[in-house]
Amino acid sequence: MDFKFANRMSYLKASEIREILKVTERPDIISFAGGLPAPELFPIDEIMEVNRQVLAEDGTSALQYTTTEGYAPLRKWIANRMNSTRGTDFDADNILLTNGSQQALDLSGKVFLDEGDTVLCESPTYLAAISAFKAYGCRFEEVPTDDYGMIPEALEQIIETAERVKIIYIIPDFQNPTGKSWTLDRREQLAGIAAKHQIVVIEDNPYGELRFEGEALPSVKSFDKTGCVFCLGTFSKIFCPGYRIGWIAGDKKAIANYVLVKQGADLQCNTIAQRVIDKYLELYDINKHIDIIRAVYKKRRDITIKTMEHEFPPGVTFTKPQGGLFAWVELPSHINARDVLEECLKNNVAFVPGGSFFPNGGKENTFRINFSNMPEDRIVEGLKCLGEVLKKF
Amino acid sequence: MDFKFANRMSYLKASEIREILKVTERPDIISFAGGLPAPELFPIDEIMEVNRQVLAEDGTSALQYTTTEGYAPLRKWIANRMNSTRGTDFDADNILLTNGSQQALDLSGKVFLDEGDTVLCESPTYLAAISAFKAYGCRFEEVPTDDYGMIPEALEQIIETAERVKIIYIIPDFQNPTGKSWTLDRREQLAGIAAKHQIVVIEDNPYGELRFEGEALPSVKSFDKTGCVFCLGTFSKIFCPGYRIGWIAGDKKAIANYVLVKQGADLQCNTIAQRVIDKYLELYDINKHIDIIRAVYKKRRDITIKTMEHEFPPGVTFTKPQGGLFAWVELPSHINARDVLEECLKNNVAFVPGGSFFPNGGKENTFRINFSNMPEDRIVEGLKCLGEVLKKF
Repeated sequence: MDFKFANRMSYLKASEIREILKVTERPDIISFAGGLPAPELFPIDEIMEVNRQVLAEDGTSALQYTTTEGYAPLRKWIANRMNSTRGTDFDADNILLTNGSQQALDLSGKVFLDEGDTVLCESPTYLAAISAFKAYGCRFEEVPTDDYGMIPEALEQIIETAERVKIIYIIPDFQNPTGKSWTLDRREQLAGIAAKHQIVVIEDNPYGELRFEGEALPSVKSFDKTGCVFCLGTFSKIFCPGYRIGWIAGDKKAIANYVLVKQGADLQCNTIAQRVIDKYLELYDINKHIDIIRAVYKKRRDITIKTMEHEFPPGVTFTKPQGGLFAWVELPSHINARDVLEECLKNNVAFVPGGSFFPNGGKENTFRINFSNMPEDRIVEGLKCLGEVLKKF
Repeated sequence: MDFKFANRMSYLKASEIREILKVTERPDIISFAGGLPAPELFPIDEIMEVNRQVLAEDGTSALQYTTTEGYAPLRKWIANRMNSTRGTDFDADNILLTNGSQQALDLSGKVFLDEGDTVLCESPTYLAAISAFKAYGCRFEEVPTDDYGMIPEALEQIIETAERVKIIYIIPDFQNPTGKSWTLDRREQLAGIAAKHQIVVIEDNPYGELRFEGEALPSVKSFDKTGCVFCLGTFSKIFCPGYRIGWIAGDKKAIANYVLVKQGADLQCNTIAQRVIDKYLELYDINKHIDIIRAVYKKRRDITIKTMEHEFPPGVTFTKPQGGLFAWVELPSHINARDVLEECLKNNVAFVPGGSFFPNGGKENTFRINFSNMPEDRIVEGLKCLGEVLKKF
């Protein structure tokens, strides 16, 4: 059979991360590649107890079909949580549950993007957001981004010259892949620019709760007076990713359209996953759990930075994130990180080359380091090896 | 904010079923509306035990990210099951796990459909398949369908005259909404026509295992010599829908494209859901469980048909399905089922009017009756009431 695939298939390509992750399933590999949480911190006993209670108390509902919007008590919890930590003003009806926040990206593309529309993003940006949006035939314009966020003047200029700008996609807290966070000013400025030009902002925030030091900043949404900002969130990094529960929060009229496209996409999220997370939040203190995660990741961040400082040759620079899962490494411009990866894989060390994080290509001399997934001794061992390889280049 | 939604939002509309389902959440409503399985048959105790074992034995993996393709042992089980019950020849790599088979419909649209392409379907057809495909801007041509399946001559004629036919979508076993099944001849003929014209067939089969009498027929796929047929399946009707695990099975090269679009859509299915179902299949006998479901639904089908025969006025006809969840009612042509519904809702009885099952509109004098979800006494009570209302029209 000679399949006639949709045109979009010609410009989609397999995620480099997920391909590398397949290699890294070998237990002997020291992997800085995925964005995987530390599995030893998953609250397994609590989840066992919560599953038991949900099934015993209300098993028939927990296993049956449910609404597309998602379990109302859980949506209410999310609204309250965002209001207290992110400076938003949501209620349950602002929230749609999604299969991880990845689905919220896909649905955003479906709700807003026509072929030929433009998405503005940080440079670099989250690789799987690129794939999600690209399926709807959009173009990307990378907005010049410094250590404080997108540069407002550059953003305005692009909006005024680029055609059909529909979405500004940002990750203001401990960005994937760089680990950088936006300053308060830049958040406020972005909200102002988006409102002025009536452009939808997708504010992705999977890592915001994982701050190791410094003060949490309010969301871009908190400065939004017109309803143009949508917030994405997830339980993947503060609870566990296996349950695939994330959300999108925003203007109710637009959320009704998200509900509509989710109906066609998969009807609803896993029912029992919603109930299990809700029951967990009722029975246990998630703040305590997040504190544990933060403490462990902070140590791993510290040892990662310290080891890179000691082991990486001069001319190699990297970010020192105040939270999240990732640091970003920049090599002298003549070195291609894909070549470095090839060499590292021979020594059973993996990471993700940075090129894929630039939707229009570029900066092959960069790579992303994940520090959340491995114990400290393996981090040190892996980074020493990586340092040795780098010295050869 | 004056949102500029994507063009597709102008032709998507809320599923009538899901809107009616919201009304039917009131416990006093006797609902023939949803396609809900009987919740009292969910194997809750077994699921509790299975959850406990999965979490105790391998909790960290079960709660972590996993591959987009899905848990290999479960995909292998599905391949073997289909090979033994559906006459197919699959292995694990032919299978991608999806969030219910609804997601397999959405991904099919994403992989194959460009704006303006044509999807051929039975007349009537599954309502949520219409929404899933429509999001990709396709047109529908309804192929004349009788009690034995699509009429081959009519199908060929449409293929030869319609433009850009990309997909033939069919539900050959206990169809939603009519409950009808295709004969062996028609299955073979369809496979031949699709192969000859090189058109993709999406063979949806959520109900095939729920046969009450007569002999199971091989799938259309079993007659496929070119790889053009894709099979959709789900655990929703033989286990429980809350876990949202379905699948698509087909040509490996095409499945690789499905994997690619699923990466962008939501990365992967719920990890623990995959593990729980796999463990259930290991520890318990799903055939025994399916036998229980069949026996209960058969009784409900029997009482549904018997009560309609007694209570519905002359001139009202209906199907007598040999399996599945639905019967299909046809009223004299001057009666609009939406008016009947309005009257019935006043008496706390609900069903789904048939008009929405015709993608290009039509046949408002039809409706769908679900018989799987309610105990027999409520079925009788509801149908008696429905009969009274019908007599008034």
